[in-house]
Amino acid sequence: MTCELIFVGTELLLGDILNTNAQYLSQRLASLGVSVLHQSVVGDNATRLTETLTVALSRSDMVITTGGLGPTKDDLTKEVCAAFFDLPLCPDEESLLAIRAFFARRGGGMPKSNEKQAWMPQGAVIFPNHNGTAPGCAMEKDKKHILILPGPPREMTAMFEESAVPYLRPYLDGVICSHEIRTFGIGESAMAERVSDLLDAQNPTVAPYAKSGEALLRVTAKAKTAAEAEALLAPVLQEIQSRLGDWIYGIDVHSMEEATVQLLKEKHLTVTTAESCTAGLVPKRITDIAGASDVFACGIVSYSEAIKQSLLGVKKETLAAHTVYSEAVAIEMAHGAWLRSGASVAAAITGIAGPDPTEDGRGPGLAYLATTDGKTVWTKTVQTGHTAGDCRDYNRTVFATHLLNEIRLFALYAPAKRPGGIPLKEEF
Amino acid sequence: MTCELIFVGTELLLGDILNTNAQYLSQRLASLGVSVLHQSVVGDNATRLTETLTVALSRSDMVITTGGLGPTKDDLTKEVCAAFFDLPLCPDEESLLAIRAFFARRGGGMPKSNEKQAWMPQGAVIFPNHNGTAPGCAMEKDKKHILILPGPPREMTAMFEESAVPYLRPYLDGVICSHEIRTFGIGESAMAERVSDLLDAQNPTVAPYAKSGEALLRVTAKAKTAAEAEALLAPVLQEIQSRLGDWIYGIDVHSMEEATVQLLKEKHLTVTTAESCTAGLVPKRITDIAGASDVFACGIVSYSEAIKQSLLGVKKETLAAHTVYSEAVAIEMAHGAWLRSGASVAAAITGIAGPDPTEDGRGPGLAYLATTDGKTVWTKTVQTGHTAGDCRDYNRTVFATHLLNEIRLFALYAPAKRPGGIPLKEEF
Repeated sequence: MTCELIFVGTELLLGDILNTNAQYLSQRLASLGVSVLHQSVVGDNATRLTETLTVALSRSDMVITTGGLGPTKDDLTKEVCAAFFDLPLCPDEESLLAIRAFFARRGGGMPKSNEKQAWMPQGAVIFPNHNGTAPGCAMEKDKKHILILPGPPREMTAMFEESAVPYLRPYLDGVICSHEIRTFGIGESAMAERVSDLLDAQNPTVAPYAKSGEALLRVTAKAKTAAEAEALLAPVLQEIQSRLGDWIYGIDVHSMEEATVQLLKEKHLTVTTAESCTAGLVPKRITDIAGASDVFACGIVSYSEAIKQSLLGVKKETLAAHTVYSEAVAIEMAHGAWLRSGASVAAAITGIAGPDPTEDGRGPGLAYLATTDGKTVWTKTVQTGHTAGDCRDYNRTVFATHLLNEIRLFALYAPAKRPGGIPLKEEF
Repeated sequence: MTCELIFVGTELLLGDILNTNAQYLSQRLASLGVSVLHQSVVGDNATRLTETLTVALSRSDMVITTGGLGPTKDDLTKEVCAAFFDLPLCPDEESLLAIRAFFARRGGGMPKSNEKQAWMPQGAVIFPNHNGTAPGCAMEKDKKHILILPGPPREMTAMFEESAVPYLRPYLDGVICSHEIRTFGIGESAMAERVSDLLDAQNPTVAPYAKSGEALLRVTAKAKTAAEAEALLAPVLQEIQSRLGDWIYGIDVHSMEEATVQLLKEKHLTVTTAESCTAGLVPKRITDIAGASDVFACGIVSYSEAIKQSLLGVKKETLAAHTVYSEAVAIEMAHGAWLRSGASVAAAITGIAGPDPTEDGRGPGLAYLATTDGKTVWTKTVQTGHTAGDCRDYNRTVFATHLLNEIRLFALYAPAKRPGGIPLKEEF
């Protein structure tokens, strides 16, 4: 099955928003074995959308659109697509009820203009929207398909998984299965070199890519059934695991935070954080995982030196002797958080996110981490290499991932020593 | 001048990379007054690239391509575009020297395959690449232009600014200026209804859109000079401001956190946070803004009831009488954070992000907010309407934006009362 994607929205042509839907749909369709031949972005313009539809459906079996389903006058994707297949729009009672219920949940009535969103092409398969107001749909004519999805990524991805994938099932031939191996602490090229001979294989394919400072491998196999595809994948996964060992933090997990929270749950451990430069990002990521309350009770964001002293008990002399950006301060922050929280493990970070370096010329991109259970403390110094320009966001993300990884490794291996781990001093 | 963008690369069709070039070029071209009518993504495929070029240049003055300039066989953008204008490729001595020098700087010789990158369309204006090996170029035929740029964003953006913009200058007529009005607390449709008569205007145009629970308006004017465009914009901006009032949190700001931090700086106020459900997201967003240390010293993430008591002084009786999800607890959290931080303003939130509701059947999507300066406290109850499914991330984002907005409004108006604001009780 061949497919083209049409993204509708003047805001995309003006560059107001980044088209993340393009990547999401392309990836998912590839994994389903659907070939995406072409992507287009058009404005909210009936003539140009019709032109684009004509060209796309002349060479492909299916078009998926996103965007242009809003309540305002300039939203016209549904109208244009229905007209393209000569289908009239009719009010859909269920959709109307769902939109009314959406507004009622927010404690208000439905604005009149939203009624338009419940008018659907006659005979279309309707895709309900559980995350917004605009339903989507699928229409078929002469073995050509148009699927209409909303523009906001949250609404689009949920609807794609819940409704579009089941709609597509009967048209898919064969199955594509893939696994994602996530590593941290090794660069993309270094990782790729260790598995370079596997990168030329055709089935399964092994493809490396980088994301937010992490290096990932996607291993994909195509077969008649899922079981056959998994049988092709198993030995390749095993081989990669034996080559990459501890750099792998998870397979088919969504993120470092998911892997870390999962492990803490398994080990019945709780964690607390004391942060300077990441300032909330680590607890935010831990609690992105539903059910994190089993392992996380509290975090302290101590941005200023005064607060490091008053809330965490960092000593004035330590700050004076080592500066706030030091291993010594990270250790005292971790210990202070451990004492005050009652958690089994405390992890602390102090560093320089940027954009500016310190007065003594260190950083950006430098951070000191400490992790402790009150008896043992592990420390780590991170240098991201991103020292200039628009580095703040990158450094904070990578710092936070490092701290999450420290928590994970500590939960895995402590109290055993590891390179860089030093026993906690007596005075604590 | 009208333009279409063609992004060449199978990796884009497979979703392996996010097309950030699309947003960059669209934004920059809009600001130069070039109308981008269409964007396309095609694979490294000569037939489909030729088809796409044919359609694009039949309706637009110019095409800009990115990607497909690498040294390997499947890179064919330059070859296809040159053939489209019947131009032979000839070796370009300067480009060849530049590529050799690039490899010499990295301490190696030029691989034979890279020589292909120095063959350029006869008569083209060559765009040197100071950040990689592939030069770009511009070709013209019958008043139609094709500009070829490399795919890697760092190389593409530098070449666009250094070479493509100067090449385009003589063809630019007029200037486009636009402003983005950001509102919060009003839905996209409700906002659009209030300015619906303005949405039909042609110059300036007024376009509504939604992003992460916020409703935005882009107002855009075209004129001969920037001053003339701004003169067209001024009365429209004023009219919109008078209609939307306090819902507007900023014009041409990037985010609520930027607006909030800016205002706190102007007012010489500092802020602290006490969070339950957002768990670090609010301080994370505040400190996303470089220089936030002027206004932010500390935040407490009190995820469990025990920590709310031990670190913030929330009373056991309050928790028992009102449950942890209550206005009463939010007030005590805010007051506790205010006392312990020494900040001028403290803001607290407790609520239900989801995915599951509470045992007594409330939420997800329900949160209680309190903001105080130790004398006055303002409270707010938020219902996002996102009560099921994949709602956690959305609810946390919107909750955090609400708390940032509360801090902003408090800084703007306190100690004056506002609807919903109640004076702090005596016992504090």
